Amino acid sequence: MSVKLEGNILVTGTNRGIGLELVKQLAEKTAKEVHIYACCREPGGARAEALKELTSQYPGKIIVIKLDVADEDSISAAVQAVRQHIGTGGLNLLINNAAINKPAPPAPLMATAKKDMMEVYETNVVGPFILTKMILPLLQRAAERYSTDKENGDEMSCRRSAIINMSTLISSIEKCPETFSGAQMYPYRTSKAALNMLTRCQSEDFKINNILVTAIHPGWVRTEMGGEQAPLSTQDSVGAVLNVISSLSNKDSGMLLDLQGNRIPW
Amino acid sequence: MSVKLEGNILVTGTNRGIGLELVKQLAEKTAKEVHIYACCREPGGARAEALKELTSQYPGKIIVIKLDVADEDSISAAVQAVRQHIGTGGLNLLINNAAINKPAPPAPLMATAKKDMMEVYETNVVGPFILTKMILPLLQRAAERYSTDKENGDEMSCRRSAIINMSTLISSIEKCPETFSGAQMYPYRTSKAALNMLTRCQSEDFKINNILVTAIHPGWVRTEMGGEQAPLSTQDSVGAVLNVISSLSNKDSGMLLDLQGNRIPW
Repeated sequence: MSVKLEGNILVTGTNRGIGLELVKQLAEKTAKEVHIYACCREPGGARAEALKELTSQYPGKIIVIKLDVADEDSISAAVQAVRQHIGTGGLNLLINNAAINKPAPPAPLMATAKKDMMEVYETNVVGPFILTKMILPLLQRAAERYSTDKENGDEMSCRRSAIINMSTLISSIEKCPETFSGAQMYPYRTSKAALNMLTRCQSEDFKINNILVTAIHPGWVRTEMGGEQAPLSTQDSVGAVLNVISSLSNKDSGMLLDLQGNRIPW
Repeated sequence: MSVKLEGNILVTGTNRGIGLELVKQLAEKTAKEVHIYACCREPGGARAEALKELTSQYPGKIIVIKLDVADEDSISAAVQAVRQHIGTGGLNLLINNAAINKPAPPAPLMATAKKDMMEVYETNVVGPFILTKMILPLLQRAAERYSTDKENGDEMSCRRSAIINMSTLISSIEKCPETFSGAQMYPYRTSKAALNMLTRCQSEDFKINNILVTAIHPGWVRTEMGGEQAPLSTQDSVGAVLNVISSLSNKDSGMLLDLQGNRIPW
C-alpha cells in the first residue's frame, strides 16, 4: 500500500515509538525519490539502534539528523543540515512528533514540580514553535513549487506543504472530565492544549503561503509513553495516521483530528 | 453596591490595571471583616504607589504581600505570610490575575523568541499552577468550614472556596481565526489556552473538596496590556467580573465565562 506523499519529509523524535514507525512506513509506502529526514536527539546513542538499522535498509532515502527540540542551537544546526541536503528544493511535510511526558503518569498535582511544567512545555510546544519558525522558508519554497490540486481545486495538502503537530485526545479541554481521573498529567495536558493553539495560530498565519497545519491524535498507542495496556500497536496507529495525513485538504487546516479524520473538540 | 463575597481573598498582580481595580472594588464592596491579600512583585517600588495609597484608605482590610509568581521561593514566602495572617482560618477566594504579554503586540512570529514563549508560560501558567498547589490547604480549610448554600443547594461558590483564573477571549482556540490577524501574540495565546486547560484540570481535581474553579474573560480593557483603544474601563470590567464571580455555582466550575456569565468555547 502506498501513501500520497511526495518530496522531502521531516519527522522529529524518531528513535522509538510512533516517530520510528512513521519513518518505517514512510520509507515503505512512498516513492523512492522521497527523502525522509529522521530527527533524533542522539543518533549515535544506544537508544537509536533501531533507527540506525532501519536507515541501513533504505540507504539514501532515510537521512538521520541530530536534533534536540529543547535546544535552540541544535534546531538551528539541524535546519542548516536539512537545507544543505535539500539544496534548491523545499520541505513538503514537517511532522512535529517529539514530545515528553513528565512526571511518570498518573502524575498527580502533588507529584508535579515547576521543572516538570517548564520542561514539558519547552519540548512539546516551544520546540515545534522554534523549529517551524526556522524551517518556514523551506516549507514556503515547497508550497511555491507545487500547483493547486487539479482533482479538487484545493490549495493545501501534505504533498504540497504541511505541518502536522502530533497532539492527543488528552489535549481536549472539553473532554478533560472524561479522562482526568485516570491520569492527571498537568504538564502534558497544558502543553498539548497549547500545542493545539499553536496549530490553529500557524494555520491562520501560513494560509497565505498555502501551508496546511493540522493536529492529529494518533490514538492510545503501546509505546514507552502510552504504556503496555494501550489498545493500539504503533503499526496500526501510524498506518491510520498516514491515511489521514495523505487525504488532508483546506477544510482540515487548523483542526485537531482523530484517526478517522474526524474533528476532536478543543 | 455590595458583592456577595466573604472571608479571605487573595489577588495576584495588583499594582496596576485589573488587579489594582479588583482590590479597590473588593475593598469597597465587601463587609469590613473581609481581608484582601493584594500581591505584587515590588510593594515598595515606584510602580506600586497607587496600591500603597489605596491600602492606606483601608487599614487592616487590605494586606499587601510581596509575590513574584515566576519565582517559586517568592510564592512559598507569600503563602507562608498569608497563612500566618489568616491563622486558623482558610482562604475563600484566590484570583490568579498576574500575567505578562511578550513581545509587544502585535507580536508576529518572526519577532517572537524562545525566551518570550518560556517566560510568558512561566508567569501565566506555571505561576498559577505552583501558587494553587502551595495554597491548596488554605482553600480546602475554607471549603470545610463553609456549609452548602441553603438557597440553591449548590456545594460550590466563591464565598465558600474558589479559584478564579483570569483568562481572555484570545485564549479560545475555536475563536482564534476571528482575532489572529490583529494580534498574533503566540506566547500569550498558547499560555492562555494552557491556563484554560489548567482551570478544567483543577476543577476536576478539586471538586471532591467543593472548591470551584472558573476562568473569566474580563473583556478588552484599557490597561497597560490592553492599550488605549480598548473599549472598557477597568472600573466597568471589574464591576462586571465581580458580579459574575459572586453568582458562580456548581455548573460554572471548569468553564471559561465572559462578563455576562456566558460560556466561551475552548
